[in-house]
Amino acid sequence: MDTQASSSAPAALPPADLESLRAAFSGRLITDPADQEPFLIDWRRRYRGRALAVAVPDSVDDVAAVVRWCAERRLPIVPQGGNTGMSGAATPDDSGRAVVLSLAKLTKVRSIDTINNSITVEAGCTLDSVREAAAAAGRLFPLSLPSGGSCTIGGNLSTNAGGTAVLRYGNTRELCLGLEVVTAEGEVWDGLRGLRKDNTGYDLRDLYVGSEGTLGVITAATMKLYPQPAAQITAIAAVADPHAALKLLEMAQGKLGSSLTAFELIADLCLDLVVRYFPDCQKPFREASPYVVLMETSDSESEAHANASFESLMEAAIEAGVVTDAVVAQSLAQSQAMWKLREFVSEAQSAEGKNIKHDISVPISDIGRFIEETNALVEQAFPGIRMVVFGHLGDGNLHYNVSPPVGRTGAEHEAWFLGLQPAINLLVHDAVAAANGSISAEHGLGQLRRDEAARYKSPVEKALMWRVKRALDPLGIMNPGKVLAED
Amino acid sequence: MDTQASSSAPAALPPADLESLRAAFSGRLITDPADQEPFLIDWRRRYRGRALAVAVPDSVDDVAAVVRWCAERRLPIVPQGGNTGMSGAATPDDSGRAVVLSLAKLTKVRSIDTINNSITVEAGCTLDSVREAAAAAGRLFPLSLPSGGSCTIGGNLSTNAGGTAVLRYGNTRELCLGLEVVTAEGEVWDGLRGLRKDNTGYDLRDLYVGSEGTLGVITAATMKLYPQPAAQITAIAAVADPHAALKLLEMAQGKLGSSLTAFELIADLCLDLVVRYFPDCQKPFREASPYVVLMETSDSESEAHANASFESLMEAAIEAGVVTDAVVAQSLAQSQAMWKLREFVSEAQSAEGKNIKHDISVPISDIGRFIEETNALVEQAFPGIRMVVFGHLGDGNLHYNVSPPVGRTGAEHEAWFLGLQPAINLLVHDAVAAANGSISAEHGLGQLRRDEAARYKSPVEKALMWRVKRALDPLGIMNPGKVLAED
Repeated sequence: MDTQASSSAPAALPPADLESLRAAFSGRLITDPADQEPFLIDWRRRYRGRALAVAVPDSVDDVAAVVRWCAERRLPIVPQGGNTGMSGAATPDDSGRAVVLSLAKLTKVRSIDTINNSITVEAGCTLDSVREAAAAAGRLFPLSLPSGGSCTIGGNLSTNAGGTAVLRYGNTRELCLGLEVVTAEGEVWDGLRGLRKDNTGYDLRDLYVGSEGTLGVITAATMKLYPQPAAQITAIAAVADPHAALKLLEMAQGKLGSSLTAFELIADLCLDLVVRYFPDCQKPFREASPYVVLMETSDSESEAHANASFESLMEAAIEAGVVTDAVVAQSLAQSQAMWKLREFVSEAQSAEGKNIKHDISVPISDIGRFIEETNALVEQAFPGIRMVVFGHLGDGNLHYNVSPPVGRTGAEHEAWFLGLQPAINLLVHDAVAAANGSISAEHGLGQLRRDEAARYKSPVEKALMWRVKRALDPLGIMNPGKVLAED
Repeated sequence: MDTQASSSAPAALPPADLESLRAAFSGRLITDPADQEPFLIDWRRRYRGRALAVAVPDSVDDVAAVVRWCAERRLPIVPQGGNTGMSGAATPDDSGRAVVLSLAKLTKVRSIDTINNSITVEAGCTLDSVREAAAAAGRLFPLSLPSGGSCTIGGNLSTNAGGTAVLRYGNTRELCLGLEVVTAEGEVWDGLRGLRKDNTGYDLRDLYVGSEGTLGVITAATMKLYPQPAAQITAIAAVADPHAALKLLEMAQGKLGSSLTAFELIADLCLDLVVRYFPDCQKPFREASPYVVLMETSDSESEAHANASFESLMEAAIEAGVVTDAVVAQSLAQSQAMWKLREFVSEAQSAEGKNIKHDISVPISDIGRFIEETNALVEQAFPGIRMVVFGHLGDGNLHYNVSPPVGRTGAEHEAWFLGLQPAINLLVHDAVAAANGSISAEHGLGQLRRDEAARYKSPVEKALMWRVKRALDPLGIMNPGKVLAED
């Protein structure tokens, strides 16, 4: 595992100085090591760090005050939302010099506008609370993640989170109309515009989105809302291989247009694992199929129309030999059962033992070839290894995960398997790079993929990124050591 | 008019040095003043400048060579596409020091991928040529502008162009997956990724998009394609005021979802002007209505379904008292006739005499109040003045134009009217700023709105923009004097 070694003693400041931080803002300042603990380790328990203190400011102005206090002392700041990130971006290093800046108390829904279809929320609002506020006003906020009850909109923006509705609604970036940001020098930039069109200068908003706290601190955002669909219908289709899944995608996009809101590929091994560890789940078809596709349509007209569209698509796909079998959910319960087959894959894979995750994307047209050739390469290099392949095919984004051979589950086997991680990562990510793909489609770089990204990015691109970093964070105090490898 | 005075003599370089430029790249170098002429004046004839030379390089590497030649000599570079911009961003100043860099020869469609739904084109491709290449492959490239035969995709990206399909497909920014850029120092950044998801660092792409050539030169782009809709249907509805138009928008978005691809507001005066100067056009309803709404639906199912959806929407809207009359086009010819009423407004207003244009946006929910109150303010301050209000209501974007009182059309009246321009701009743009709107929704800043933008942006935002500018263009040679007012 990547947990960092704790090599140097914490550079503790004299207590009086922490008192000056306490006096500088309204909010909670956590200095007791036991109380700091939950802020110093990521939820996957891959990274553990130390901090001078954890600051939990009450307001945007208090966030700015904390940043200014740190800037004056050249102390690193690690912004943190729900601490549910996948890449360790919100965990401090082990120097003990950093101030962890939690946005947990910034939880106001500042305004909601059902005609402009927008909502302005503070960074610490959980994703589910934003979805609920939208729903209460009769609107849809389409971003949806398994961690929705804990992850925050500030974290979603900082990592440009994805999810299963990207096909129709885009990534978190595309859902954002405006931002409020505390800059690296502790000033407040009010960019909270709720406009669909604004061409008055550089796109600062999209620079902060996805920058994982390395340029400034997102404190609030104006996000897009949508009408709630009249009906949502789920279906599962059996396909022989990813090429057939791509043909089905093209047919579905042609016939359903933007009503198609999810298109998820699931390899048969994923379903085997799910039904093994979740006995309430059943495989969708009597005969095993190498892959299935989970699809969702969101219809603005009616359930009957949604059903008819899906039935017509599936008939055409079966007739064309693209799909070997298909089932359209006839009830909410059936829909939910289908989604569980997708949602439980990660957990089932964890129950099976240690695993190695990749969050990759390639051009959608290349995904069939990529899976075939890369599966073959991995299986040849590491005989018996199992590929747990599933993900957002409609976005070209796969969770291209790896499990050890059947039966190799003891502690000794685990050490052997995790020892393969660098070699497997290299093989998979080299294949991604050769396909002009991305080694982090929706999880960000944080510390997990920082050095690997540096391997694949061109010198020109790395130099441009460093120029942006130095321009917006001239003191280098915003989440140092994340995203950018040393210049 | 804003045509700049020509005050200083051109700082001509010794001929030998232009010979070194000629030797530095493959392509055309235009030094003859008469041949340069079309590159030195914008199409609206508001700006005229001078240039050391006009370079028309043959390839991306030649673009980079021209930029490096200029960088070595600290000479300004003015990138130019189809020279159809609305804000003078592509016209050099009158110093005569600049090299105009035309992308006109970079016209390759490099690749098209109907499964990935993407097309990679060079910057000098006209918008219509991109649309045609997509259509030939059975796909839709949704950006559409009246200048499509002349404007280039590089220019569309540099200004983040809008148009009538933004409601469904977004601005040019949202249509872009990846860029190739020659940096301000003459290096080539290959960011031509055709991915829907890629979270591996800062969003350089969106920084170059909309930066109007002030950070680097866009030389190619990978753009999104969409399935072609099965049917497109147009309708016009009569509404009493913009508030009713907003109610109709909400009903249409609820019932049609993302099939709704256009929602344009047109004030009755616009229709009067169109039928006066285009005798083939007719007003859509016998009884005049203060406003009409032009709507378009793009249906993935069938023409019959599109028609039924529209008829059902209009019936509900009439029943609810939101719409006083409505007509759904029954043929392509009827659709085209309806669109002409919208497309000819600008030309009809020009035929009526000089006019003052504003390209503004406000939150959609505020647009009714904005029009009422701002119309009243302008009419009170300048009695007899006529408001020519039309635009993309679904995006909150109005072309909020002003014409002189009836009958005041002679040269003397024109001078009087254009003398009012600063005061009218101030009044309108102050009202926009008070509504947290944008003074340039889709036309960019260029030189036309540069100083006005500086009036409304916060010091924090201006400082961030200058930091980005200095980071990516440290020599200050990329299109100086555009977008950013002096620091």
